[in-house]
Amino acid sequence: MTKPVSISLDAMGGDFGPKVVVPAALEYLDEDPEVILILVGRQEVLGEQLGGAKLGNRLQIRNATQEVGMDELPSKALRGKKDSSMRVAIDLVKQGKADACVSAGNTGALMATARFVLKMLPNVDRPAITTAIPSIEGFTYMLDLGANIDCSSSHLFQFAVMGAELVSAVEGIAAPRVGLLNIGQEEIKGNEQVRGAHEMLLASSLNYAGYVEGDDIYTGGVDVVVADGFVGNVALKSSEGVAKMVSHYLRQEFKRNWLTRAAALVSMPVISRFRDSIDPRHYNGASLLGLRGIVIKSHGGADVLAFKNAIRIAEKEVHSDVPNRIARQVEAQLDKRASA
Amino acid sequence: MTKPVSISLDAMGGDFGPKVVVPAALEYLDEDPEVILILVGRQEVLGEQLGGAKLGNRLQIRNATQEVGMDELPSKALRGKKDSSMRVAIDLVKQGKADACVSAGNTGALMATARFVLKMLPNVDRPAITTAIPSIEGFTYMLDLGANIDCSSSHLFQFAVMGAELVSAVEGIAAPRVGLLNIGQEEIKGNEQVRGAHEMLLASSLNYAGYVEGDDIYTGGVDVVVADGFVGNVALKSSEGVAKMVSHYLRQEFKRNWLTRAAALVSMPVISRFRDSIDPRHYNGASLLGLRGIVIKSHGGADVLAFKNAIRIAEKEVHSDVPNRIARQVEAQLDKRASA
Repeated sequence: MTKPVSISLDAMGGDFGPKVVVPAALEYLDEDPEVILILVGRQEVLGEQLGGAKLGNRLQIRNATQEVGMDELPSKALRGKKDSSMRVAIDLVKQGKADACVSAGNTGALMATARFVLKMLPNVDRPAITTAIPSIEGFTYMLDLGANIDCSSSHLFQFAVMGAELVSAVEGIAAPRVGLLNIGQEEIKGNEQVRGAHEMLLASSLNYAGYVEGDDIYTGGVDVVVADGFVGNVALKSSEGVAKMVSHYLRQEFKRNWLTRAAALVSMPVISRFRDSIDPRHYNGASLLGLRGIVIKSHGGADVLAFKNAIRIAEKEVHSDVPNRIARQVEAQLDKRASA
Repeated sequence: MTKPVSISLDAMGGDFGPKVVVPAALEYLDEDPEVILILVGRQEVLGEQLGGAKLGNRLQIRNATQEVGMDELPSKALRGKKDSSMRVAIDLVKQGKADACVSAGNTGALMATARFVLKMLPNVDRPAITTAIPSIEGFTYMLDLGANIDCSSSHLFQFAVMGAELVSAVEGIAAPRVGLLNIGQEEIKGNEQVRGAHEMLLASSLNYAGYVEGDDIYTGGVDVVVADGFVGNVALKSSEGVAKMVSHYLRQEFKRNWLTRAAALVSMPVISRFRDSIDPRHYNGASLLGLRGIVIKSHGGADVLAFKNAIRIAEKEVHSDVPNRIARQVEAQLDKRASA
């Protein structure tokens, strides 16, 4: 029998804290008999939220007396909140008491704390954030989504190696196609950093597909899109904005008069299937890559369905041994560069 | 009687050349009795495309023996194609024979040629590309959309001044709200250039709304969004990608079975009104700002409807005297900085 996977949950993090994390944990345990969940946070609050639910080997509480605010400065959280639910949840991973950790808390604080506690993998300079984005062909993983600005060519190259290995591990794609985000005009094609990363990728053994543009994130062709954190974050947020605008206009048109309202009624099943297919809750859970441990960032406003998805991603990364695979792949790519 | 507006059209540019430009010009002349259009390109090709349409004071042909290819290097086009339809169309603006020019040709070549022929306005370092993007509240103008990478704080500040003045001139908004594109994490908020531009904007007399994120382009709150060309281009292209994906999924869902096909039939008027409201053809026409003249870039793949919209934008900018207004505003902002 294999040892069951154990996941620590920052139960106080996110916009809703235990009101979302506790029911998500209970539902998750019902649906998945193979997992152990450790709720980290104020014992009395968690106890109350649990109601009659029984603690035991599969559902545990680990008390933590502090919380990190959603707008708190990462450096302040790191120095002043050594018993926060976020910090303790990550400590459990460091101590080997949990195999992965999930938090819906403040991204900057989570990144800083995870990096401080878990440390980076050898030869990885910076952690990167990535998540699966729905595309016409299935998914695209984009990284970095905002952990880093002003990246060097080597940083971008490391993101490519980590992203490709993650996709290979969790999606089972042997040689994921990697694209480097750029803009289309020939003579000013990319800045120095992007052009440098392009050369490194061409010389690597990754399945490098060359430059891609913003629309290629959604219209497919590659499995991984590499960008610095500023650009990646803007691309993701802009896309969210378009999706909101589109659903606003669609709603508005269907509400116009009794005829369009009738049409809405008839089209309801279609519209809701459509909405499901691009529902961000099904994609909730971003991976912090490059650390000596698995940390999944849930969206701060995640509901129960969305938070469960983040737990599912954590479990998947444990099963596929993501950090060790990334460490080996980074080393292999370095060896290749050294021998080139 | 005011002198009628005269616009030169690069009739050979774009994916379809005269097949789109000539019919667009004829339709435009029918709809607008106040304008003179000059078709620039190979006389014999244009004559053939015109069929029986009569030339005269309102519709003129200016022969040009060369064409700039869509993938041609800007520097090569600039040096080697002095009689291209693009170059001659811009020359007409320089010579005062046209008040503005519209081209669907290669963006890089258009930018380089326009800059070389028309020159920059005083105290503007670089031209920027901008266009109106549909948002929940109406429109947002974003700049730069790809003309510049590696922008300094001063460049970003100049983009802000030019964008605000354009919106004020063509949309009649007295004090357009200006946002600076950034990412959300506090401690690493923006790179040096963005933070520097932020300080300059705070000290200016522009109606500066502070930092915005990618989704704010679409969910409103500001009239102008400022970013360097790499970031702006990625934001725009990513958005186009999402829009394509959304319409792909919507089509797919409505095609699923006979029931959903029936629903599609009923919803057709709603869906087409919806599609109209975000139809990129209604927004076709990007302005090259910062030049001593008006140059409008049409999308390369524009159809007749879209190309007419680009002509409309050119005419609007002539009527509202955009380059002179920008020149005055840049000077006013410089005076304010000097006296601060």
